[in-house]
Amino acid sequence: MAAAGLSWVRIGEFAWSRLEPKEGAYDFDWLDRAIETLGNAGLKVILGTPTATPPRWMLDKYPDMIALDDHGHPRGFGSRRHYCFSHAEYLEECRRITMKLVKRYGSNAHIAAWQTDNEYGCHDTVLSFSGAARSGFRDWLAQRYQSTDALNRAWGNVFWSMEYDTFDQIGLPNLTVTEPNPAHALDFRRFSSDQVVRFNRAQTDILREHSDAPLIHNYMGRVTEFDHFDVGQDLDIASWDSYPLGFLEDRMEDGDPHKCAYAQQGDPDFQAFHHDLYRAVGGGRWWIMEQQPGPVNWAPVNPAPLPGMCRLWAWEAFAHGAETVCYFRWRQAPIAQEQMHAGLLRPDSAAAPALAEATQVAEEIQGMPEVATAQSHVALIFDYTSDWAWTVQPQGRGFSYFRLVFEIYRGLRKLGLDVDILPATAADLSDYKLVFAPGLFALSADLKTALSRSNAIAVIGPRSNSKTKDFAIPTPLPPDLPGLDATVSYVETFRADMARPVEGGGHVLHWFETLETTAPTTFKMTDDRPLLVGDAGIRYLAGWPDETALARMLDELCLTCDLQTTDLPEGVRIRRTESHKFVFNYAAEPREFDGVELAPADVRWTRL
Amino acid sequence: MAAAGLSWVRIGEFAWSRLEPKEGAYDFDWLDRAIETLGNAGLKVILGTPTATPPRWMLDKYPDMIALDDHGHPRGFGSRRHYCFSHAEYLEECRRITMKLVKRYGSNAHIAAWQTDNEYGCHDTVLSFSGAARSGFRDWLAQRYQSTDALNRAWGNVFWSMEYDTFDQIGLPNLTVTEPNPAHALDFRRFSSDQVVRFNRAQTDILREHSDAPLIHNYMGRVTEFDHFDVGQDLDIASWDSYPLGFLEDRMEDGDPHKCAYAQQGDPDFQAFHHDLYRAVGGGRWWIMEQQPGPVNWAPVNPAPLPGMCRLWAWEAFAHGAETVCYFRWRQAPIAQEQMHAGLLRPDSAAAPALAEATQVAEEIQGMPEVATAQSHVALIFDYTSDWAWTVQPQGRGFSYFRLVFEIYRGLRKLGLDVDILPATAADLSDYKLVFAPGLFALSADLKTALSRSNAIAVIGPRSNSKTKDFAIPTPLPPDLPGLDATVSYVETFRADMARPVEGGGHVLHWFETLETTAPTTFKMTDDRPLLVGDAGIRYLAGWPDETALARMLDELCLTCDLQTTDLPEGVRIRRTESHKFVFNYAAEPREFDGVELAPADVRWTRL
Amino acid sequence: MAAAGLSWVRIGEFAWSRLEPKEGAYDFDWLDRAIETLGNAGLKVILGTPTATPPRWMLDKYPDMIALDDHGHPRGFGSRRHYCFSHAEYLEECRRITMKLVKRYGSNAHIAAWQTDNEYGCHDTVLSFSGAARSGFRDWLAQRYQSTDALNRAWGNVFWSMEYDTFDQIGLPNLTVTEPNPAHALDFRRFSSDQVVRFNRAQTDILREHSDAPLIHNYMGRVTEFDHFDVGQDLDIASWDSYPLGFLEDRMEDGDPHKCAYAQQGDPDFQAFHHDLYRAVGGGRWWIMEQQPGPVNWAPVNPAPLPGMCRLWAWEAFAHGAETVCYFRWRQAPIAQEQMHAGLLRPDSAAAPALAEATQVAEEIQGMPEVATAQSHVALIFDYTSDWAWTVQPQGRGFSYFRLVFEIYRGLRKLGLDVDILPATAADLSDYKLVFAPGLFALSADLKTALSRSNAIAVIGPRSNSKTKDFAIPTPLPPDLPGLDATVSYVETFRADMARPVEGGGHVLHWFETLETTAPTTFKMTDDRPLLVGDAGIRYLAGWPDETALARMLDELCLTCDLQTTDLPEGVRIRRTESHKFVFNYAAEPREFDGVELAPADVRWTRL
Ligand SMILES: [Zn+2]
Ligand SMILES: [Zn+2]
Ligand SMILES: [Zn+2]
Repeated sequence: MAAAGLSWVRIGEFAWSRLEPKEGAYDFDWLDRAIETLGNAGLKVILGTPTATPPRWMLDKYPDMIALDDHGHPRGFGSRRHYCFSHAEYLEECRRITMKLVKRYGSNAHIAAWQTDNEYGCHDTVLSFSGAARSGFRDWLAQRYQSTDALNRAWGNVFWSMEYDTFDQIGLPNLTVTEPNPAHALDFRRFSSDQVVRFNRAQTDILREHSDAPLIHNYMGRVTEFDHFDVGQDLDIASWDSYPLGFLEDRMEDGDPHKCAYAQQGDPDFQAFHHDLYRAVGGGRWWIMEQQPGPVNWAPVNPAPLPGMCRLWAWEAFAHGAETVCYFRWRQAPIAQEQMHAGLLRPDSAAAPALAEATQVAEEIQGMPEVATAQSHVALIFDYTSDWAWTVQPQGRGFSYFRLVFEIYRGLRKLGLDVDILPATAADLSDYKLVFAPGLFALSADLKTALSRSNAIAVIGPRSNSKTKDFAIPTPLPPDLPGLDATVSYVETFRADMARPVEGGGHVLHWFETLETTAPTTFKMTDDRPLLVGDAGIRYLAGWPDETALARMLDELCLTCDLQTTDLPEGVRIRRTESHKFVFNYAAEPREFDGVELAPADVRWTRL
Repeated sequence: MAAAGLSWVRIGEFAWSRLEPKEGAYDFDWLDRAIETLGNAGLKVILGTPTATPPRWMLDKYPDMIALDDHGHPRGFGSRRHYCFSHAEYLEECRRITMKLVKRYGSNAHIAAWQTDNEYGCHDTVLSFSGAARSGFRDWLAQRYQSTDALNRAWGNVFWSMEYDTFDQIGLPNLTVTEPNPAHALDFRRFSSDQVVRFNRAQTDILREHSDAPLIHNYMGRVTEFDHFDVGQDLDIASWDSYPLGFLEDRMEDGDPHKCAYAQQGDPDFQAFHHDLYRAVGGGRWWIMEQQPGPVNWAPVNPAPLPGMCRLWAWEAFAHGAETVCYFRWRQAPIAQEQMHAGLLRPDSAAAPALAEATQVAEEIQGMPEVATAQSHVALIFDYTSDWAWTVQPQGRGFSYFRLVFEIYRGLRKLGLDVDILPATAADLSDYKLVFAPGLFALSADLKTALSRSNAIAVIGPRSNSKTKDFAIPTPLPPDLPGLDATVSYVETFRADMARPVEGGGHVLHWFETLETTAPTTFKMTDDRPLLVGDAGIRYLAGWPDETALARMLDELCLTCDLQTTDLPEGVRIRRTESHKFVFNYAAEPREFDGVELAPADVRWTRL
Repeated sequence: MAAAGLSWVRIGEFAWSRLEPKEGAYDFDWLDRAIETLGNAGLKVILGTPTATPPRWMLDKYPDMIALDDHGHPRGFGSRRHYCFSHAEYLEECRRITMKLVKRYGSNAHIAAWQTDNEYGCHDTVLSFSGAARSGFRDWLAQRYQSTDALNRAWGNVFWSMEYDTFDQIGLPNLTVTEPNPAHALDFRRFSSDQVVRFNRAQTDILREHSDAPLIHNYMGRVTEFDHFDVGQDLDIASWDSYPLGFLEDRMEDGDPHKCAYAQQGDPDFQAFHHDLYRAVGGGRWWIMEQQPGPVNWAPVNPAPLPGMCRLWAWEAFAHGAETVCYFRWRQAPIAQEQMHAGLLRPDSAAAPALAEATQVAEEIQGMPEVATAQSHVALIFDYTSDWAWTVQPQGRGFSYFRLVFEIYRGLRKLGLDVDILPATAADLSDYKLVFAPGLFALSADLKTALSRSNAIAVIGPRSNSKTKDFAIPTPLPPDLPGLDATVSYVETFRADMARPVEGGGHVLHWFETLETTAPTTFKMTDDRPLLVGDAGIRYLAGWPDETALARMLDELCLTCDLQTTDLPEGVRIRRTESHKFVFNYAAEPREFDGVELAPADVRWTRL
């Protein structure tokens, strides 16, 4: 590995049955040896806590430690992540094994970082409908509301005689006849996210006490069921597992033509979006913990990356400020669930195609001065609570908060702009010229203040600030923005095949709000209804713009803010650091840009 | 509300947790005051029994009162309609609360009508697979068959060794390895319908004893799991909840072009069909209890009605004989499940767009002489049992009884004809020139007599009279109609993309029967097989005609009956009362008819 | 029946509730009489054991005898096949009733054959997730592996800490959080197949002891969840239930154009494939036990066969060596689940259209000399274990082992070739010129030897020999074939809309392997990667060829082997016996072949 230029290796993350084959009977010898061997080979070791795979005897001890799905079916032993975040005794066991590990290896010179658990939320494991979750939820609600009267009022339970007399009467929001109260559902999602935070913190508290190595978790792409910003507070570095081809197929809404065009390269913006998101989650420090090195096993179809793409993906990450890019896996495992998941080595230990690309990147990075992240001029707010809220209440097929934010990100990136992603708690926007807060459930007082203090143009909407924290419609009606006279009179969702035309070009998709406003209108519909209103620092966007309409708006906004944009050919993207400009060609065909012919998967950089 | 011309207001239908916050501890003060306030404002109050939303303490008392779905999953507390119609103790509780209410308000001058429960069957709540349902079903079968020998014979249980020795061995027809015996499934549906009738009657018996105000239930669109005619026997007025845009999206089979064309107006015939159906269910007296006033929250997408449509919908109802059109809701609720369901007022109490239309209708109706329903010349039989039977045994993808009847209704209405919908028990057809009984499971002796005494041309089929009441194929084979030599030799269902051509134009869809017949053939297939046979009063239709074939047949039949038809532009519909002819434009574009230019959503009426 | 030329009649297969109405109280009188009547009418009787339909009292005795589905839901009483193959006491009951029957009728002169149970596996009944199955699986694993250490090693359970300490900790591979270990899943499928074998053998052991009549089971089309070759070992004759129209609609992947083209004729190759498969399963002796005689009731749509097709299907079967073709049913039952399933007679006992065709076939067969099956020159291996393995691990949407084998069969038959289907245990291939083993999980030593001793060209791949028997990737990497230097470097699956072009014409679908090879390349991709390599007896095929690419390869291979092919018009097929060549027209239009005009459904034969 070191010969290939790799410097980090992660071990231990699924090894509980080998570390503690019987309860209380530990075996660390093999791990001692492994760490020694790897360390002596010049590799820095990331040691994972093995809590994502409790061994079989643990299930004998706590048969109720597993999650139940929303039909009440058990999610049992036989793969991984077979635990409920709310199970108190399992949490205790996780503390115990973490303590054992950190006491033994906390000051081992080869252990250069710790990973907690593995991919929280993967396989849809945040929401559990178990008895442990129900008890935990009742306690959480009791803490939050203090009395059922307060809860009944906050949720509006009078509506369908849903009032509770005691907290013990409150169930989880599954298995109801028709949809549950959205306030009930949202609080369950808040609770579930908090349980992940609590679970992670139980480990970080112990690790910090006994080790100075940085603490990391490896998040998964487009897992939004828990608040990564909250978990990130307890960690030193954010990392994520980047599978561009798998993600394109199994978690993007784009149609077949797009998926065909990028089948072996991945979406040009999906990884970048996560890079920027996790840079924020990590407070500036972030890694790729797992980079796809070839065909994987878990997507609907699993093609190989085009030659060069593994290198391109790594450079896109570095250009966004990644400190480290690790590959998963080193050698393809010939056994068990991931036997068809490619590694840098084949199962017979011969080199797989990506090894040469990984080596090339390692060499190139050697010759590269430290890459410092540049301050972006554009900020985009991503808020997990909003994603939960609109998942609970989409109001129309096709409304996805994640997608709405992502499409604005894509629109900005297509204009060659660098973007910072910020949480909804961002208290300082002074460095930005342009700020977007689409679909933001509720604007906090802090954010309102930050907006008012900033010189940026803030584009708020659609659907932003449309609810109280208790998931009710506020009065005055939304968006209720300081200095902007605009009221959403009513909201429409509509069929994807009935996009509504915007005057001058483009359409509105999925969602449109009819405004009462005296504010100046920059963009309007062909029927004269306002779409983008306001002329001072705050604009309100009353619908979901399609690609064309969005591009027109962004052009206009950038012009207003004096932000320079770039004409990029289809599939070409750029990214600037403090010192360099990187150009990436995601297209499967050559592209010409800036007078240079870019081969497929080409990466070029120039000093700024 | 009174200022807006509204005269009726419904209250109380979901208020059990406020009327009886703890078991036996009642609080009627707030309701006393509400009734007083509304009544003094000149409004007539409809008081709803709150039995659709049993309070949480009721579930503590009777944990087994909920329904189970067909997988055996509970349908628990947290929304509404969380009860099983078969649960004896809950039924007793409903009697108790109804008695309390009617004793207190039965002679209150402001209480001008009573609504039982709310939308029976909504959220798929008629069929329950609970223990209570199983016990009830066994009792019901014991009553019906007296002995398991009789039941085994009636169901043909010998077929797969499905014979029972005792009624207690009989389960519900879910969770079988392959499909259950259709006779078993149909009896379960008959039982389930009877349980709704019983549940409703438990309330009407008490209400009638203590109040002279008329009794009403608000049925839901295209809910066919219980027999509305049976429930209607115990009520004075039928009403239904009309959501034209939601229904178009979520319960009509029509393809995307149709749904796009009418996305903001609703289907031109779906409401009219229900108006005519509920006029029959109510024995002539019927209302709209809930009229959609804007975007709702529950359909796949929720656009706003075109300006004018709320008025058009109200007038279409009046033209079909509605006594009253109420809107739901008065003010949009900012809380809980329906917070995105528009009202006549916005959540901030400002007027929503529909308020002006409702007010206009109220004014227009003032200036209108009493509208008496005219006798139609065309009758169309709609039979709930047939819908259950063919849901149990469609025999081919695409066969829906409701849809078959509806398409004939649509075909008639497109020719400008007024239609009466009748139950299968209709004993007098003397007023009609043309009678349709498509897909009627079994013709009763009464109906056969009525047909033979009528001078009407009766069009029977396809699939009509093809089963005994016990869901067996009778001998002689179907259709076995008096005076018509025709035998269905065999039946075919076929792919929707393999419509079969009719000689002269049009096709047969989904279903075709090969007839042995000596009767004259009016329409035949291009391969010479007969499609419409008979020349005296009874015709038999051997397939499911598409729009073109149906129009040709109806033209021919109307000519034969001397019934005048009208050429209507796409989207335009007419309806006659005793005194007026109404013209409605459902198209989103202007239409010309009778020399008049009709704007979208236009309604015109002329004295006859 | 005899008058119609029918000579066999099957009875008793669902009659348990009539044979033993109460436990231990038998009634054979009716069966005595029935056998006597049928026998005296000149009919040979096949007596079925009634074990597919345990009577209701059996369920009272053994409530846990039913299967559970993979969600844990019961698959209860009310239709048929409501038993778990692993339930020990039910198996004992089946032995008992079989003993009773064979003791009474074992030497009855009219009983000319026995059928065990009915359609094993129909309605997805092989895999059961019951307690009985779990216990049985644990025992089966203990037998197979002797120790959990061995099992843990074989399965690679260390991967995600999935190691077991005792066999009692091992669950069934359902209800896991993400996919279970493929080794776990495959062993469960092996176990489940073995349970069917054991269940069948329990009956055949008893039947053989007391009767000399041949033993038969009626397999169902495309049921692959148990190993038919294994079950066949205990039987004398294989038979299958052939429903060409139902199968086309409900179990073939072909698109709408194909399904429309053959909607009333059935797929031209699906039946032939099963004929050849069951000839192998029966060791040369096979029947059609149930031939579709008209529209059935269970497919998504149920059209009638074109006139002549029932005759064509029968002749196709005889041409493939069928000893007998029986029709199901004789008379259409007017009751219960199959009341819409056509028979040779209508429910009123009039002749249905197929009766004349059945009679014609019976007459024609009389005039036909004994039809001996000819030795084919082409062999195609079909292996149930491979089907299970790739169902467990498709690695990409669209990969179906059955379909892969079937498409090669279809390609061969389109060239007018006769094919023998062989199990993976085939030890002698000396009679063949061309052998195909696509997708074969693991090549046995026997098969390798047979291949090396044969003079045939063997086409192995794609995906063949790619796993150890324990579902691991072997080293050396696949295909590891003797005398062929070729290594699968990596595997790709890809979108159906991204077929990859083959040089010279055609495409590769779904699956492609990048080879490292020094072997000569016969076919390659347009990017020069090898597709078909090798020049001696063993060729390796590195992808899934589409129709065009396959046809090109087969042409080339046949030329090399000196095998003569035939140009057949679309929908026309041929089949040779020792003495005759048969020509079938499956097209709905006339076709010209060999200078003869073939009507739709035409069958012609000529002496060779
Ligand atoms: Zn489930
Ligand atoms: Zn379930
Ligand atoms: Zn199930």
